[in-house]
Amino acid sequence: MLKPNIESFIGCDSDYENADIVLFGTPFDSTTSFRPGARFGCSAIRHESFGLETFSPYQNKDLTDCRIFDSGDLELCFGKAELALQDIEDRASEILKDNKLPVMIGGEHLVTLGSVRAVYRKYPDLHIIHFDAHADLRNDYLGAELSHACVMRRCHDLLGDNRIHQFCIRSGEKAEFVFAEKHTDIHLFSFDGLDEVVEYLQQSQIPVYFTIDLDCLDPSVFSGTGTPEAGGVPFSQLLTALIKVSRTNIVGADINELAPMLDSSGVSTAVACKVLRELLLAVSH
Amino acid sequence: MLKPNIESFIGCDSDYENADIVLFGTPFDSTTSFRPGARFGCSAIRHESFGLETFSPYQNKDLTDCRIFDSGDLELCFGKAELALQDIEDRASEILKDNKLPVMIGGEHLVTLGSVRAVYRKYPDLHIIHFDAHADLRNDYLGAELSHACVMRRCHDLLGDNRIHQFCIRSGEKAEFVFAEKHTDIHLFSFDGLDEVVEYLQQSQIPVYFTIDLDCLDPSVFSGTGTPEAGGVPFSQLLTALIKVSRTNIVGADINELAPMLDSSGVSTAVACKVLRELLLAVSH
Amino acid sequence: MLKPNIESFIGCDSDYENADIVLFGTPFDSTTSFRPGARFGCSAIRHESFGLETFSPYQNKDLTDCRIFDSGDLELCFGKAELALQDIEDRASEILKDNKLPVMIGGEHLVTLGSVRAVYRKYPDLHIIHFDAHADLRNDYLGAELSHACVMRRCHDLLGDNRIHQFCIRSGEKAEFVFAEKHTDIHLFSFDGLDEVVEYLQQSQIPVYFTIDLDCLDPSVFSGTGTPEAGGVPFSQLLTALIKVSRTNIVGADINELAPMLDSSGVSTAVACKVLRELLLAVSH
Amino acid sequence: MLKPNIESFIGCDSDYENADIVLFGTPFDSTTSFRPGARFGCSAIRHESFGLETFSPYQNKDLTDCRIFDSGDLELCFGKAELALQDIEDRASEILKDNKLPVMIGGEHLVTLGSVRAVYRKYPDLHIIHFDAHADLRNDYLGAELSHACVMRRCHDLLGDNRIHQFCIRSGEKAEFVFAEKHTDIHLFSFDGLDEVVEYLQQSQIPVYFTIDLDCLDPSVFSGTGTPEAGGVPFSQLLTALIKVSRTNIVGADINELAPMLDSSGVSTAVACKVLRELLLAVSH
Amino acid sequence: MLKPNIESFIGCDSDYENADIVLFGTPFDSTTSFRPGARFGCSAIRHESFGLETFSPYQNKDLTDCRIFDSGDLELCFGKAELALQDIEDRASEILKDNKLPVMIGGEHLVTLGSVRAVYRKYPDLHIIHFDAHADLRNDYLGAELSHACVMRRCHDLLGDNRIHQFCIRSGEKAEFVFAEKHTDIHLFSFDGLDEVVEYLQQSQIPVYFTIDLDCLDPSVFSGTGTPEAGGVPFSQLLTALIKVSRTNIVGADINELAPMLDSSGVSTAVACKVLRELLLAVSH
Amino acid sequence: MLKPNIESFIGCDSDYENADIVLFGTPFDSTTSFRPGARFGCSAIRHESFGLETFSPYQNKDLTDCRIFDSGDLELCFGKAELALQDIEDRASEILKDNKLPVMIGGEHLVTLGSVRAVYRKYPDLHIIHFDAHADLRNDYLGAELSHACVMRRCHDLLGDNRIHQFCIRSGEKAEFVFAEKHTDIHLFSFDGLDEVVEYLQQSQIPVYFTIDLDCLDPSVFSGTGTPEAGGVPFSQLLTALIKVSRTNIVGADINELAPMLDSSGVSTAVACKVLRELLLAVSH
Repeated sequence: MLKPNIESFIGCDSDYENADIVLFGTPFDSTTSFRPGARFGCSAIRHESFGLETFSPYQNKDLTDCRIFDSGDLELCFGKAELALQDIEDRASEILKDNKLPVMIGGEHLVTLGSVRAVYRKYPDLHIIHFDAHADLRNDYLGAELSHACVMRRCHDLLGDNRIHQFCIRSGEKAEFVFAEKHTDIHLFSFDGLDEVVEYLQQSQIPVYFTIDLDCLDPSVFSGTGTPEAGGVPFSQLLTALIKVSRTNIVGADINELAPMLDSSGVSTAVACKVLRELLLAVSH
Repeated sequence: MLKPNIESFIGCDSDYENADIVLFGTPFDSTTSFRPGARFGCSAIRHESFGLETFSPYQNKDLTDCRIFDSGDLELCFGKAELALQDIEDRASEILKDNKLPVMIGGEHLVTLGSVRAVYRKYPDLHIIHFDAHADLRNDYLGAELSHACVMRRCHDLLGDNRIHQFCIRSGEKAEFVFAEKHTDIHLFSFDGLDEVVEYLQQSQIPVYFTIDLDCLDPSVFSGTGTPEAGGVPFSQLLTALIKVSRTNIVGADINELAPMLDSSGVSTAVACKVLRELLLAVSH
Repeated sequence: MLKPNIESFIGCDSDYENADIVLFGTPFDSTTSFRPGARFGCSAIRHESFGLETFSPYQNKDLTDCRIFDSGDLELCFGKAELALQDIEDRASEILKDNKLPVMIGGEHLVTLGSVRAVYRKYPDLHIIHFDAHADLRNDYLGAELSHACVMRRCHDLLGDNRIHQFCIRSGEKAEFVFAEKHTDIHLFSFDGLDEVVEYLQQSQIPVYFTIDLDCLDPSVFSGTGTPEAGGVPFSQLLTALIKVSRTNIVGADINELAPMLDSSGVSTAVACKVLRELLLAVSH
Repeated sequence: MLKPNIESFIGCDSDYENADIVLFGTPFDSTTSFRPGARFGCSAIRHESFGLETFSPYQNKDLTDCRIFDSGDLELCFGKAELALQDIEDRASEILKDNKLPVMIGGEHLVTLGSVRAVYRKYPDLHIIHFDAHADLRNDYLGAELSHACVMRRCHDLLGDNRIHQFCIRSGEKAEFVFAEKHTDIHLFSFDGLDEVVEYLQQSQIPVYFTIDLDCLDPSVFSGTGTPEAGGVPFSQLLTALIKVSRTNIVGADINELAPMLDSSGVSTAVACKVLRELLLAVSH
Repeated sequence: MLKPNIESFIGCDSDYENADIVLFGTPFDSTTSFRPGARFGCSAIRHESFGLETFSPYQNKDLTDCRIFDSGDLELCFGKAELALQDIEDRASEILKDNKLPVMIGGEHLVTLGSVRAVYRKYPDLHIIHFDAHADLRNDYLGAELSHACVMRRCHDLLGDNRIHQFCIRSGEKAEFVFAEKHTDIHLFSFDGLDEVVEYLQQSQIPVYFTIDLDCLDPSVFSGTGTPEAGGVPFSQLLTALIKVSRTNIVGADINELAPMLDSSGVSTAVACKVLRELLLAVSH
Repeated sequence: MLKPNIESFIGCDSDYENADIVLFGTPFDSTTSFRPGARFGCSAIRHESFGLETFSPYQNKDLTDCRIFDSGDLELCFGKAELALQDIEDRASEILKDNKLPVMIGGEHLVTLGSVRAVYRKYPDLHIIHFDAHADLRNDYLGAELSHACVMRRCHDLLGDNRIHQFCIRSGEKAEFVFAEKHTDIHLFSFDGLDEVVEYLQQSQIPVYFTIDLDCLDPSVFSGTGTPEAGGVPFSQLLTALIKVSRTNIVGADINELAPMLDSSGVSTAVACKVLRELLLAVSH
């Protein structure tokens, strides 16, 4: 008897009960103000992952040895951000309730807020490690407080001062940098300072939400994103950094902002797949 | 002394006071559920119009002989459709108050609702002539009532039965066609029946809002749109039809749903420019 | 408990036991001599089908009222055409054995041979209705007898004279046209003659395999294919023709030769989805 | 001993001495005012012609039965139009001197002037048959008299009134249409009137230069050109028309304005190849 | 009363009288010998700049604190390079006469000659700092002395020996390198030697024209240009170098050779915008 | 008398008899399992090489001073890998028999096997230097032993242990890395260890086949390839490495895996041209 067509990220073939890690996609970009298309990111990553190997020579590990379940994409409402965020929060909560690690694939960066809300409810002493080109600390964007450009500001509303550790930031309004100096732990342009942050979080076993806006990468290697920003980090540095972060107590994670319509060569999608593979291998034990 | 850089749709160089017709753009596509990018339509149409002549051999008229003012694009909020619609309604109202004809360039089709609200307030006996591939008569789309897929349903909420005349429709849910049979004047696949509708409206001098979703065109000549639908009308038929409609008492108009990111050849943008030129010439006296 | 990610062609959500029709994809283009990429056709059709409605205003039918199962794509060997054909034949045979109708999504046109072999074994009096721009009647192509350019010749090897009915053909070597005149029922450029063929087949209840090379369509509406050939038929004619053919006793069918890499606007994929929807509705009872 | 790499338009493998027809390419687009790239047209046509068959089922003729030599592309100076035109005139003159038919592949439309100058010197009673979307009758374009937009005006300078027969014209300044009414034989939008023109020219055995700006085709089937203009003719009508024209005494011909950079699907290049094949077969005896 | 649509580079909203710096665009690429399209560079930079912030975290400065006026694009003649250069020279002269700094956005590199002529007339002791992948020192290109490939040679005709300081050069004919060794101050592959040059020019307060051919950047981060040349400098090095150069007495500047048609991802345009922002901030006091 | 159109890689204009080096192209990608198109690599490299200079400032050498003959592309059978490999082997053998150096332009990487077979027959003590992102050491791929993913394994079948020196490898199945540890001289991620390998081979004057899969480069600078793999080497390192390798006794060489359909900006093709120029200059004496 023939089977239906199941599509999962490569090597993520565990069933839900036995899984330690649960993937889910959030195809949403309704607040993207410049070039849209991040809604297609999660689906493209899953679809193109079959061009990747399950084995990583960097970590000498294989996805087929991990227990990961891919639950597919949510169906999210466009034009009403709050509804979409609620659905994301619900999915993350369900995974957390079953004591599994939620790993989300965006979508625009606003989706992180849904997942952080769920994780924060379970872990009120949560810190966030945030890799991004943009500070995302605006209070509102053209009147909208639920916008990709405000997502870290909304997270700060929840977590308070000095619990958001930002790296590679190289773009923002002047006011965002002024805000960051007072309220977040911001590191411009690079991963300088990450060793210290990781060591501190690791020693105190503080729960960490890890969000990677893929546009922290240099647009030379990751051009397929809504707002590419020259002067980013190379892939090798991101790889080293994420392995480093995986030594902390990660309780939730996401990658976001791949926009496949802007990726005519397919390289950005391939890079996103590889980052996700390495992230999954790094947080898998 | 050097002048600033003014960019208008070709030949629309009147000043506001002397203008009969006022163009404005509505770069909004936040509710687009499939492939986004219509937000860039109005800007692309203005920008690429310099590849077009101001003279039409079809109507033997020249835009430089008309009095048209291009007021540029609104800056619209993403992620909160109601806010964007309010801004659109305000712009259309201002133009109507000054007794000029508002001609809007979308954006996704939802923007039509903002403009129709303003026109309807001034002309409560308004009818709508609607060219489109899609019925746009859903009651809601994934929970959102303000969605491109619902825009004619929202217009029907305002105008009531038998005042929306739909042509070229070839896609929709079964429920939409059932609704249309009872509540709108729907014409499938083609412009069949347009002559009668125009004659009726013309004779009674009923005020008409004219909305052209450019995807009524066959995707062969208009591929650059979010949801292309095979089996559309050729350019020549659309041209004939719009000239026909211009014989009615048009009190507001728009074209919408060009998505330039999906138009790698530039043909769809060129077609949109030409449709707009012919529309402006047709409604200009 | 979360569910795995099942991806089917829109509205094809029956389970296998209850299905009348079974879809399967054959991602193969290893013999394509000009521009490759048809291997991605079946996956793109399934993936992009969610931009389509399940309801057809042309046939006034809805896919959700049919019993169709989508069994996903085969994993086919590249570089050894015979191996791939064997796997295709096996899949079609399994479906036929269970008394269901196999509908295949290519892939390059050579895949039809695998399916025809299976169908022919069950129905030795089989005829083929073949829509295509190309005659596909070469004896070999650069030494390969299993080539997309030879597929109808190989089918003729099985079925013999006057059982292959070819329509819309507008390209081929001189020798192919000479061969066709003697051995097949060829109709150049259009669907002229289809009425008679259908009537004959329908009256005798002859089993029919129906293969649609989508490049029979004009490249204006179907540009995303390896060897586009100007002068094809418009979508509306193909639609009429396929509904006509559905009145015969169809025992197997396929559509093929969509190459999504060549379809930057997405229109060709949308057209392919619509053709498949109409085909499924037409053969569903 | 290995041979060098000769690249010719498919089936044009005669040597120069025995050839009746000589092809040459003119990779020039220096005066193109809107979107450039026609310089790559001739090379793309030659290169992609191997995706075409040498046999035409429309004319039941085969290029391999004709005597055609492909002399490759000229190397033309950019930024100085007069120099480029001189080189083109020289090449055409050399071919005419050897009593062969020059068939040129552009390039932007200005290249026609070089070829017409050579042909006109040999045949002072020359007429021109001109298929185009644009009238090309401006006196100058931003100060340049040697511009693609002026090419037919420059030809009129040579030939005088009523010897240029224009078809499919649907774009131009008002002044161009006024000029045309007095000085050329202009036919708007279609091939209406071609029968009469051909009959007249054929009966008087007047020498004819035949220039096809491929943008006379509808952009649906020929999008890859600098200034696409909706409302053009379909391929089948162009095919019929060019076969008709071939009954006159053609002494020079060209096709032009393919811009491959704007042809991401490759369809326009394939169409141009097919038009050239049919043209060569039609003028070959 | 509604206002017309003014489009300026982001944050350049001063009026002309109060401006210190005046931007102007030169949409010209008529002599480009390989892949054209730089004509669209200036317009794309202005248009896409709204995806950028006005604030630079690199220089801790904001464009809204500067006094910059954007005078839009010139309308330049194609096919006659000398005419275009004259218009450019006139524009630069007018700005210089009003004691403002002209900053030009190309266009192909030949446009620099127009601007340099104007600046040189005012500052006869002018030096040029030239960042580029190509030496641009040919005496002529296929007979044309006014060609992008000759622009620095023409500047040398004006300024004489040892006043052109070239960096990052990695492509040219052998003869160009031989010429450079005798007549210019050439630095291959990198910015090595820039410190010394800047120190010398700064101390002597020599007036400097600063021209950045953006293809000095590595094609990984700047692919959208006519003649990409592997082995270029990363963005961070260009940024450091341009800030360094801004310490000299800059009396004219330009960036050039963005070809947006070749920039499907939009990254090159975003990079060009960022380079221009940083250049404007650096030369603004 | 006009000449036919000869197209060679730039500067490779020697005749066969006098040539030291003979280029040939192998347009084959029939076993490519992920994204096809490498078949067009050799043709694109030849065609686009005219955008390159013949002079290298890196090596201070000029192609016009070398004796290189370009014999064009083979016509290879698709769908039967063994037939294609035989034709490649024959061509390489013919060149070797005439005591010239065969330099092949792929095509997918499997083509290397054809050339290695010919070279190995003449030089049984052959070693291979292999630059690649992928180990290419699978025993079979979906049942096919002649697959791009197996090419180095097939070479190992011929040469035996420790004669294949692999660099920059960063992708493969776990089993490939296990195999490599025992049987090949593998170097992960970079060119570390190349100095020692070159010194050893140089001193013993061991004949070397040098194969460059261009995807060893980082996808930032070489995105146009079927399976891009982040974390590659920059162009400058590849350049240094290939000059180093040229000090050994090279008896055959190739570059492969450019897929121009995936290179919308043209940068990858330009990079491939430059690598080939540098390789030809390096091995030319």
